[in-house]
Amino acid sequence: MANGRNVLWIMCDQLRFDYLSCYGHPHLHTPNIDRLAERGVRFNRAYVQSPICGPSRMSFYTGRYVRSHGSTWNGIPLRVGEPTLGDHLQEIGVRNVLVGKTHMRADTEGMARLGISPESFIGARVAECGFEVFERDDGLHPDGPYSPNPEYDSYLKAKGYDGPNQWERWSNSAEGEDGEILSGWLLGHSDKPARVQAEHAETPYMIQRFKDFVAVAGDQPWCVHLSLIKPHWPYIVPAPYHDMYSAEDVLPVVRSEEERQDPHPVFKAFMGERVSKAFSNDETRAKVIPAYMGLIKQIDDEIGKLMEFLDEKGLTDNTMIVFTSDHGDYLGDHWMGEKELFHEPSVKIPLIVVDPRPEADSTRGTVSEDLVEAIDLAPTFVEFCGGKPKPNVLEGRSLLPLLESTEPIAWREFTISEYDYSMRNARMDLGLPVSDCRLAMIMDKRWKFIHAEGFRPMLFDLQEDPQELQDLGANPAYAAERERMSEALFAWYRKHHTRITMTDDQIAASAGKELQAGILIGYTDEEELEEAKQEQGLL
Amino acid sequence: MANGRNVLWIMCDQLRFDYLSCYGHPHLHTPNIDRLAERGVRFNRAYVQSPICGPSRMSFYTGRYVRSHGSTWNGIPLRVGEPTLGDHLQEIGVRNVLVGKTHMRADTEGMARLGISPESFIGARVAECGFEVFERDDGLHPDGPYSPNPEYDSYLKAKGYDGPNQWERWSNSAEGEDGEILSGWLLGHSDKPARVQAEHAETPYMIQRFKDFVAVAGDQPWCVHLSLIKPHWPYIVPAPYHDMYSAEDVLPVVRSEEERQDPHPVFKAFMGERVSKAFSNDETRAKVIPAYMGLIKQIDDEIGKLMEFLDEKGLTDNTMIVFTSDHGDYLGDHWMGEKELFHEPSVKIPLIVVDPRPEADSTRGTVSEDLVEAIDLAPTFVEFCGGKPKPNVLEGRSLLPLLESTEPIAWREFTISEYDYSMRNARMDLGLPVSDCRLAMIMDKRWKFIHAEGFRPMLFDLQEDPQELQDLGANPAYAAERERMSEALFAWYRKHHTRITMTDDQIAASAGKELQAGILIGYTDEEELEEAKQEQGLL
Repeated sequence: MANGRNVLWIMCDQLRFDYLSCYGHPHLHTPNIDRLAERGVRFNRAYVQSPICGPSRMSFYTGRYVRSHGSTWNGIPLRVGEPTLGDHLQEIGVRNVLVGKTHMRADTEGMARLGISPESFIGARVAECGFEVFERDDGLHPDGPYSPNPEYDSYLKAKGYDGPNQWERWSNSAEGEDGEILSGWLLGHSDKPARVQAEHAETPYMIQRFKDFVAVAGDQPWCVHLSLIKPHWPYIVPAPYHDMYSAEDVLPVVRSEEERQDPHPVFKAFMGERVSKAFSNDETRAKVIPAYMGLIKQIDDEIGKLMEFLDEKGLTDNTMIVFTSDHGDYLGDHWMGEKELFHEPSVKIPLIVVDPRPEADSTRGTVSEDLVEAIDLAPTFVEFCGGKPKPNVLEGRSLLPLLESTEPIAWREFTISEYDYSMRNARMDLGLPVSDCRLAMIMDKRWKFIHAEGFRPMLFDLQEDPQELQDLGANPAYAAERERMSEALFAWYRKHHTRITMTDDQIAASAGKELQAGILIGYTDEEELEEAKQEQGLL
Repeated sequence: MANGRNVLWIMCDQLRFDYLSCYGHPHLHTPNIDRLAERGVRFNRAYVQSPICGPSRMSFYTGRYVRSHGSTWNGIPLRVGEPTLGDHLQEIGVRNVLVGKTHMRADTEGMARLGISPESFIGARVAECGFEVFERDDGLHPDGPYSPNPEYDSYLKAKGYDGPNQWERWSNSAEGEDGEILSGWLLGHSDKPARVQAEHAETPYMIQRFKDFVAVAGDQPWCVHLSLIKPHWPYIVPAPYHDMYSAEDVLPVVRSEEERQDPHPVFKAFMGERVSKAFSNDETRAKVIPAYMGLIKQIDDEIGKLMEFLDEKGLTDNTMIVFTSDHGDYLGDHWMGEKELFHEPSVKIPLIVVDPRPEADSTRGTVSEDLVEAIDLAPTFVEFCGGKPKPNVLEGRSLLPLLESTEPIAWREFTISEYDYSMRNARMDLGLPVSDCRLAMIMDKRWKFIHAEGFRPMLFDLQEDPQELQDLGANPAYAAERERMSEALFAWYRKHHTRITMTDDQIAASAGKELQAGILIGYTDEEELEEAKQEQGLL
């Protein structure tokens, strides 16, 4: 049962791993996040299970691979009955609370089939991916039906910002010389300040909502998913963050002409998407990336204040703090915008875990090079809060052993990420049916292999080519590596991913019990049966 | 919605495909079942998705592969939320009714997690694999807690048979010369008559229960799963069926000494199981198989009467009749007892479908050589009853096209079956962890390839070696065939098996709708945005 420990699980959206100074950014100083890394373990090889919000988050929230939970893209409901972190924490008396974004869509059809009302206590949790919702805000309030209940808009209204859609008009728009509103959706405006004051921007607002939760939380231990919307687009940030960085502070773009010559067909289709073309324009990058950096800088400032708050509230000693992201952002690298493919800027995430237990003292300030996955967080939280392992359901591994010692231990050899592009223009460009848009990445510490259904694979050698500029997927010299990685991927597919109702231990314990149950299979006569009963101690 | 059609879905347990005269048995005449074949289509290549009761049935009941539903062995609960045939029929107003065996175990933990009471209307269905239970009887009432509510025992008691455990004492025991009770579990007693009178045996009893259902069914269309327990063990049958057949009527055993020389390790472990040794004894076979044949003969007799009943009740013209089994029985072939591996006597089933619609007239009395799977029945029933296809959930294919025409159509090229032997002594013999006991068969019309985790594969050429006596799994001459089959298996694994909450059509319809939703990704300025809006007709 719960041991009085809390988890504060901070997730940014679309934060690239290398846009933090502790991960090596030379110009973007993030001292507060760096301080977390000093207090805990910084994971240098952390990967998401799908490089896009929805399925990545469903993997975080279930501790399961995309092929297991089945929610392969944004807006594809998480099937009812898929066990969530919230279910596991609930069992041990820990609240699993959402403050911010989830991108979850409820399986209303499945709920109706099972007679689960979204109004019921359980139904409300099922409809929200296992979370008790303190505040949900998916961070997009475009003019349309996207987010029907934007509390943040009401907050802005109360602060004197006029509507409609304060989110769009103030936090995500700039102003022109004649006072006209310039949409922050448009990348050409990213260098201008958002109209909102910095203190009323989305990041400080949502962190304040976490504080509001703490004020009313009471004594029950909690895991709060503080899910920040930034630095996700619209790429626009209020003053003073809008001009803290300039084009000179931007990391050099990682791309080569060779990449555009005879590229993998799927890569080519993605390079052809509008957003990729936009981010291949250096002028656009020079406007957008400084804003992206400003958004991160604001997060860092707010994280600093948040840590002070935890100290003041006496929460530091019993709260695990996790800082991570749901995926990265190409920002023009590899002629790409957005995320979705498997180059490091997209699929790799920052992950810092501060474990307050004395058992974790020996690892503070260290860097782990083990291959860790987004699905490792759920089992980590369950174990940290006093729960038992559930390897039949939770496909990730608890990180506690890596937090307790820097000595090498047996750990996974491969990490997996999946992406289905059936919702994308790339599918139409390639003329594929919805069912065949499956990509799967498997990587070890050196090789990254990407299976692309219906096409040749991609292969990168991260040791010789850390920038992933040379796709070896068609190079005859690497046939053996491809074969090895393909076989490892096949082995992963073959594993049980859905046998969630019984543990291996339970199976082992019930094996070979026919005779005890009076089920007599293969006995010819009484003598033989007596003998067997005697052997099994049943007489 | 429902179109007033019913389905009578008769399933035997452990009935080998070739122990019926319509499938070629030279001595076991089953004229009533043969008559069904004359009235419908007899499928000559029908395979189960797992050659053992529990997972095979869960695939029948969900229309999904074992790797999808996750219930890999008897007693492993079907996870809550896994959609069943009952769910799909319920949507179109058709009752899905159980009369007989399911071998289902409810996911009580998952139900509790979702707050579904087994007492509720929905909960009762969820707890019974989507069935409305008219009568459930898993066909085993050993002395123990197996079946807590054996209605059949009460029936026997009312008929004057004394207890306790009338099922065991009367229906599944013989009597010795001195009146002592001889257990029918013991194969040495299989040649003796069961103590029960034939008319009170399990088969006529359960068929009577179907008639009882019809008497009270009312007007709502139904699908009744009339799930007979026989010819499953205990292998014992009442007079006069116990001596209708003799050792001369038994099919010649199919086995070779070569099979025991250097066999595949998993095959070897199974040959070493007690039941395999028992069935490798010709004396035992000579006692057991005539009883097995007698059980089938009784089923055939009762099917004849049942068809008369349907005629009398006016049900023949609007009721689809299906006759099948959940798997076969080695009966000593290949030095094996029981089922569980993938030789034809185990994994292949009889399947006869009588479709009363005029559209099916042209196929009556024909034999289909298409590869069909157990999971095809659920979509067949849904379509027959007026429902829409659900390819995202139902992994099988409706058989209606094969019932409507004998013209060749595009059909599946491979059939798949899976088996996990972690509950078996074979696992202990091989010293394997529970997680690694995975077998998967893929076959086309000629080649049968079996992946065995951690071991070499098995391979059979059904054209050159229809009796499957030569395992080509290690023969270098067949490397290319193995490679081809292995790749086909890999391709099957890679498919989506869990994306059940959205159809491909829905995905196609929602793709590329960002701009319509006000999500503006990759636009640099107003001009570009206007242009795109114009292109998409949004202005």
